[in-house]
Amino acid sequence: MTDNVKPWIFTASCVSTLGTVDVVTRYMAQAGHYVEEILSFDDKASSRFFIRIEFRPNPQGFNVDEFNLEFAPRAEKFAMQWQLTEPNHRTRVAIMVSKYDHCLNDLLYRYRTGQLNIEVPLIISNHPDLENLARWHDIPYYHLPITPESKLEQEQKMVSLLDDYDVELVVLARYMQVLSPWLCDQLEGRAINIHHSLLPGFKGARPYHQAWEKGVKMVGATAHYINNDLDEGPIIAQGIQEVGHAQYPEELVAKGQDIERITLFNAVKHHIEKRVFLSGGRTIVLSH
Amino acid sequence: MTDNVKPWIFTASCVSTLGTVDVVTRYMAQAGHYVEEILSFDDKASSRFFIRIEFRPNPQGFNVDEFNLEFAPRAEKFAMQWQLTEPNHRTRVAIMVSKYDHCLNDLLYRYRTGQLNIEVPLIISNHPDLENLARWHDIPYYHLPITPESKLEQEQKMVSLLDDYDVELVVLARYMQVLSPWLCDQLEGRAINIHHSLLPGFKGARPYHQAWEKGVKMVGATAHYINNDLDEGPIIAQGIQEVGHAQYPEELVAKGQDIERITLFNAVKHHIEKRVFLSGGRTIVLSH
Amino acid sequence: MTDNVKPWIFTASCVSTLGTVDVVTRYMAQAGHYVEEILSFDDKASSRFFIRIEFRPNPQGFNVDEFNLEFAPRAEKFAMQWQLTEPNHRTRVAIMVSKYDHCLNDLLYRYRTGQLNIEVPLIISNHPDLENLARWHDIPYYHLPITPESKLEQEQKMVSLLDDYDVELVVLARYMQVLSPWLCDQLEGRAINIHHSLLPGFKGARPYHQAWEKGVKMVGATAHYINNDLDEGPIIAQGIQEVGHAQYPEELVAKGQDIERITLFNAVKHHIEKRVFLSGGRTIVLSH
Amino acid sequence: MTDNVKPWIFTASCVSTLGTVDVVTRYMAQAGHYVEEILSFDDKASSRFFIRIEFRPNPQGFNVDEFNLEFAPRAEKFAMQWQLTEPNHRTRVAIMVSKYDHCLNDLLYRYRTGQLNIEVPLIISNHPDLENLARWHDIPYYHLPITPESKLEQEQKMVSLLDDYDVELVVLARYMQVLSPWLCDQLEGRAINIHHSLLPGFKGARPYHQAWEKGVKMVGATAHYINNDLDEGPIIAQGIQEVGHAQYPEELVAKGQDIERITLFNAVKHHIEKRVFLSGGRTIVLSH
Repeated sequence: MTDNVKPWIFTASCVSTLGTVDVVTRYMAQAGHYVEEILSFDDKASSRFFIRIEFRPNPQGFNVDEFNLEFAPRAEKFAMQWQLTEPNHRTRVAIMVSKYDHCLNDLLYRYRTGQLNIEVPLIISNHPDLENLARWHDIPYYHLPITPESKLEQEQKMVSLLDDYDVELVVLARYMQVLSPWLCDQLEGRAINIHHSLLPGFKGARPYHQAWEKGVKMVGATAHYINNDLDEGPIIAQGIQEVGHAQYPEELVAKGQDIERITLFNAVKHHIEKRVFLSGGRTIVLSH
Repeated sequence: MTDNVKPWIFTASCVSTLGTVDVVTRYMAQAGHYVEEILSFDDKASSRFFIRIEFRPNPQGFNVDEFNLEFAPRAEKFAMQWQLTEPNHRTRVAIMVSKYDHCLNDLLYRYRTGQLNIEVPLIISNHPDLENLARWHDIPYYHLPITPESKLEQEQKMVSLLDDYDVELVVLARYMQVLSPWLCDQLEGRAINIHHSLLPGFKGARPYHQAWEKGVKMVGATAHYINNDLDEGPIIAQGIQEVGHAQYPEELVAKGQDIERITLFNAVKHHIEKRVFLSGGRTIVLSH
Repeated sequence: MTDNVKPWIFTASCVSTLGTVDVVTRYMAQAGHYVEEILSFDDKASSRFFIRIEFRPNPQGFNVDEFNLEFAPRAEKFAMQWQLTEPNHRTRVAIMVSKYDHCLNDLLYRYRTGQLNIEVPLIISNHPDLENLARWHDIPYYHLPITPESKLEQEQKMVSLLDDYDVELVVLARYMQVLSPWLCDQLEGRAINIHHSLLPGFKGARPYHQAWEKGVKMVGATAHYINNDLDEGPIIAQGIQEVGHAQYPEELVAKGQDIERITLFNAVKHHIEKRVFLSGGRTIVLSH
Repeated sequence: MTDNVKPWIFTASCVSTLGTVDVVTRYMAQAGHYVEEILSFDDKASSRFFIRIEFRPNPQGFNVDEFNLEFAPRAEKFAMQWQLTEPNHRTRVAIMVSKYDHCLNDLLYRYRTGQLNIEVPLIISNHPDLENLARWHDIPYYHLPITPESKLEQEQKMVSLLDDYDVELVVLARYMQVLSPWLCDQLEGRAINIHHSLLPGFKGARPYHQAWEKGVKMVGATAHYINNDLDEGPIIAQGIQEVGHAQYPEELVAKGQDIERITLFNAVKHHIEKRVFLSGGRTIVLSH
């Protein structure tokens, strides 16, 4: 019934105006590309238009350069930013970690079993602890310890590594160092972080202890793009888990880890499937 | 920021083929209608195409007859079935009940407070019990008791009533009588039923007792379009609630009622917002 | 199978020490009372012991005064606070509202249908809007408008009313006035409030708008005992609902209302079933 | 605040009668053992009493033989079955698998990181596929392929292995062979299986395809003790995951796997913490 041929993905955004949908869908029809699914949204708050299309190319033949050549002038009239993603494109993801391994282990399992259509060309850490796990998956592990003095230099090394390995997405899988503002800027829209969702409710040190003091009945997690406002970037995905009075703070942390790794996975999956668009400080997630 | 002007809704479906999207979106652009949101899906299993569009009409003026006149020939080429729904259209809903009032009460509350954009011109029941509740909401209540002998006659009366009141949707809000096959056929795609989701797991009498015997840890509810296969029509929405060993069967029933009314509400909301399409024995729900 | 005779409830708490369980369970056995369920918890953080027992009294006869007389000296050795609740005791609940009716409507529905084993002898409001709903349920409605000048006087009237009607529990079902500190003190442990759980994340005015600005993917609700720390008392129950980019702030509010009323109901149910104990700034909820 | 000394666990069950709680709690008090938590339940349906106690032994000294000697005659009067579990007892778990690795991987991760307080002395499989994963965790892997002819012999080998390795619990982590009735009997109450919770709704081959045909909006999983009624033993834990029309059967399977491994983990955790009791065909799970 299903032919298991994955479709191409077309995504675009521009300022809201009449004809934005038509310019895309008309080209698809004229070029003989078969549209399998459209999701579009017009954000009234930012007055921006977003669209994501899955299509099967014209069986007579499909040439990316030709698509670019033909569509570019049409897009230009709308100052439309657009992107074509081939089926089975494996996004190149650098994972950054410290000592906790719950998120790393989950991502690598899904990578290894094909649940996440990614490549993981390298893992970067400020601690040596998780090298063994990286090695089992045959992934280079770069240990870049951070001190106040070495921070700038090490972050520059990171940027070089991301460059050398053609990294498209950085996933901070419980990387416990704050990135410098210049680096946050440089990674805008292509670095995803996970934190306990008690923030911003419980800022500062030991948030689970603070939450426990209030007797919370739920703990959660938030995955977001990083920006300069620490732990406050545009939210991509959130998750929640029930807890009770019998869980002391240490157990809240453990419960929290389960929901952290699932939430981070969901965010990464949305991103690599090109479902997430930035719109001001928020995200538009075109999914169903 | 938001102008609170609700958009018009356009929905359509036809056999999958090249150009189905284009014929719609091109007309929208040419007629000057502003597309706020598109959701489309191409069902590989049934080879059918489904689309739902929210649009603001051309501010220069909008005439439904003109839309019909201009779009009809375009649609015809694709044998496309399509429908235009005006903003704030209040779907005319007949609610059918027996003795349980949890679903009726919930629907009427949401109707009264505007959460459900519907009219409820009449309530039909095979029992007199809930007349008082209907009266408080100033809704005519038709008591049509059913015996094996009277069933056909009473069901014909129902059809007359649905006709007289221009009913668009029938909601069986725990109506405990099985409708005759001819009536199910007549109401195809426009009658929603709710049942405990233990079915088809626990068929027959007293399903909650059967479920309790197995020590289930969850009870649920399923809202579906009715068809001739009793309690087995195309599923629109499902919900779930956790239970434990300390809940005896009577308490499972009570827990189940809460999830029944929320699930029924979700299904009705999807339907009146024109998000639900029939595709073979399944539904396509174009939502986000 | 079940005899539908509800059990008596015994609850107690005291400082943690050896023998606290034994003093209770031994008396039950000696007096011939049949223990159907025990839930106990020893809170290491506050060094306090909490217990809740459901029991069927000695079929030879049961006399509350005798229980009190016999158990009091045993409890005294542990400085134990304890309480006996008869089966089918209907807690006398005053509901306080302003203009929103979603929580009031839900509580009254569950009261009317017996899902909540309570009496509602009166409703108090600072607005006249919901009097009609109160009247349909035959419940006296006291309209006590609040101005800065009248606040003290009106709050004293409230206290008189709570007294006159022998109120055991006050439920602030979206009562939009802050209670004065002296009143909060007086109602400690017997007044439950509901607020959107975005707090303390999003303090101040228009929290749903603030949350929307961040693009939250979930909204929630928290039910808690009131105290002097505005919207920050000990948490009894929490609930969550998923949202997306297509929901503008007004829709977040609507989504939030559904989870508010369910969460408030859960908290009230736990309270009247004597499952909730205060332990420092937290609650112990002995449930399963 | 918490001393991280885990308590001993005492569990017991017997026929419901007056004094069952007292005989336990009185002995605890007299022997100077400090009760941290009691959970008890009296199942009216089976007329059986169940209790689980966490206690810190008398700091003056604690001797298991002495406990046994002193408590045995008290228990005998009630024909009470009881068990003492020392803190940090690591339950010896044999994991059985076929080709799917999602459950195995999850259990081994939680074992390795200490989230599950177990030993895994061996893994048994009817296929060689997952040996590499076992090897990375330094766990012996026994490949026992099954044919109709070899089934009895191989199952006898299994029993020998379970014996040799002092296995306390068998976890069928997607072991795709039906165990023979005699083996099911022998493993009663100490073998946990996981299946998609669509059962018994969708019996027979390819249940996810059957479910998809109905357009289900949720898939789930059920963990249960095995018995002779295939896939129908007493339920320990259940989980659920939302799905939609855009997920074809293969994707339902993938979605289902996530909820399968979490549900299996929950069931195993409840079992090794001695929270699960069999009561007729149901389980009593004493948790909070």
